[in-house]
Amino acid sequence: MLTTQIRLAHRPVGEPTDACFETTTEELPALAEGQVLLATRYLSLDPYMRGRMSAAKSYAEPVPVGGVMVGATVCEVLESRSDRRAVGDLVLAYTGWQTHAVADARHMRSLDPDAAPVSTALGVLGMPGFTAYAGLLEIGRPQPGETVVVAAAMGPVGSAVGQIARIKGARAVGIAGGPDKVRALTEEFGFDAAIDHRSATFGEELKAATPEGVDVYFENVGGPVGDAVTARLNTYARVPVCGLVAGYNATSAPEGPDRLPAYLGRVLTQSLTVRGFIQDEFVPTHTEAFQRDMTGWVADGSVRYREDVVDGLENAPEAFRGLLAGRNVGKLVIRVS
Amino acid sequence: MLTTQIRLAHRPVGEPTDACFETTTEELPALAEGQVLLATRYLSLDPYMRGRMSAAKSYAEPVPVGGVMVGATVCEVLESRSDRRAVGDLVLAYTGWQTHAVADARHMRSLDPDAAPVSTALGVLGMPGFTAYAGLLEIGRPQPGETVVVAAAMGPVGSAVGQIARIKGARAVGIAGGPDKVRALTEEFGFDAAIDHRSATFGEELKAATPEGVDVYFENVGGPVGDAVTARLNTYARVPVCGLVAGYNATSAPEGPDRLPAYLGRVLTQSLTVRGFIQDEFVPTHTEAFQRDMTGWVADGSVRYREDVVDGLENAPEAFRGLLAGRNVGKLVIRVS
Repeated sequence: MLTTQIRLAHRPVGEPTDACFETTTEELPALAEGQVLLATRYLSLDPYMRGRMSAAKSYAEPVPVGGVMVGATVCEVLESRSDRRAVGDLVLAYTGWQTHAVADARHMRSLDPDAAPVSTALGVLGMPGFTAYAGLLEIGRPQPGETVVVAAAMGPVGSAVGQIARIKGARAVGIAGGPDKVRALTEEFGFDAAIDHRSATFGEELKAATPEGVDVYFENVGGPVGDAVTARLNTYARVPVCGLVAGYNATSAPEGPDRLPAYLGRVLTQSLTVRGFIQDEFVPTHTEAFQRDMTGWVADGSVRYREDVVDGLENAPEAFRGLLAGRNVGKLVIRVS
Repeated sequence: MLTTQIRLAHRPVGEPTDACFETTTEELPALAEGQVLLATRYLSLDPYMRGRMSAAKSYAEPVPVGGVMVGATVCEVLESRSDRRAVGDLVLAYTGWQTHAVADARHMRSLDPDAAPVSTALGVLGMPGFTAYAGLLEIGRPQPGETVVVAAAMGPVGSAVGQIARIKGARAVGIAGGPDKVRALTEEFGFDAAIDHRSATFGEELKAATPEGVDVYFENVGGPVGDAVTARLNTYARVPVCGLVAGYNATSAPEGPDRLPAYLGRVLTQSLTVRGFIQDEFVPTHTEAFQRDMTGWVADGSVRYREDVVDGLENAPEAFRGLLAGRNVGKLVIRVS
């Protein structure tokens, strides 16, 4: 059995170009006892992958140059030498940017296609949904009547953050790029207000949308949007820092002035809590509640989701660039086969 | 009865010059029912006062131009028209930079000169000690074996932070300016290590003093020292942000590069908790435990303190400039009469 793989050819400087990726085709080894042969149905593309392409120290090992790009996948079992998995099973695995893989049958989780579309295991019912759930509830701790702001609000994390905030009785304000996304946030996802960060009057619109200030800012973009929301934070506001996608392609520290002293000054005078997190931290403590709550909310319609499905593994690099630039609408997945 | 007062003449731009202050002498009004006449014995000088001299929004109202400079004081009651206070009583009050004052007898706390030197009510047993205690224990939460770093470590907050950290079983590393302070930190205050931030090899010395990284950084200075310690923070480290004295005289944002994106990147990848606080927040919840613990620790010698006593109210402006520049050694108080 052959697998087609996308590998990291060069570490990117700035935006990952086509030259950063190379496509290879390899013969897979025969199955050993306990292993299964998987065919990738869906590959998840997520902003964190940009970090894995760099050599810089982070919370996880970088992808080695020449290595297959990592990523979560929904796969079908084609062959099995394990009692745990049968041919035809659908599983959540972490086999990366490739069409097929041989993997240990223990390193995957079964999916029930009757319970929910299996691709949701990569989005609202998977890591992005869990990130929103754990980060918002454990760090953000929105209280009824408080104002929660989230950017990249049409992404899988942001849209879940806003909807969970509303379930908890808070007011949800979403920030996104472009009128279609902004309209969808209020009309489809039930946000109380939505703002286009590309608008020339973004600052005034943010102020108007947060008349009582901001109590929770779920930070997943950074950059000028982060600055504008920071200026609206109330005393004792909480800032779960989940991502900073606005700077992921940055090649050097931006020019001055240096805004760090003013930022820390605001942390001090407003008694802010700024807390970075990687969702793994909360897996042991929050997985059961997440699966119960989120499955229920999706089933009863109180949490909606959108998927942005791109066909063909060969289109993953271009789709990934679009993700970093905010061109996706909803959870970006590659339909591989 | 006359009082000599130091008032805010002009809001400072940068370091407060003599022209920012003016000295006036006024006749005090006759006592109304419930009031006392106070003679100031000690005036506390603290970094927060620099913020009160500016018009910028902060956690407290600025001193109005022409108003008496604010500050905590230890006073003696000279006359009383209240059942609460007798002539000769020593009290902790908030009468500011002046020699005498008329005040409501309810707005002060009795001091027992037999229990501890009364000036300690402005330092180790007062607001600075409480700031250290509440911020370190409630936000920093040092665990046995962890490493706690504090700068301005010979100041009243920093020295208490390091000593309380050791009481809790953590390793205490202090940063201060100059060899005398550094020596006192280890020899007199029991810090495990101390470093001179003026040293040309400060970065390497900090690394050597924190071989297992830093778990709690009690931030009270900011600036380059803050940067160096931030680079040593471990995953899940906690940063109580209590003060940023390095920037209090800044007149504009420093030149670039802009370090905020890199700072937030570190918050994210290291799952840091950065939490600003003003000690008032913890007064309702932590005062009783503080008074019990700290009084006991001072009495049994496990927490030591130093005072830097300057004679004469007229010397307060120059002493205050020295405080902002780190020239004091220990808690700075003005002996007024």
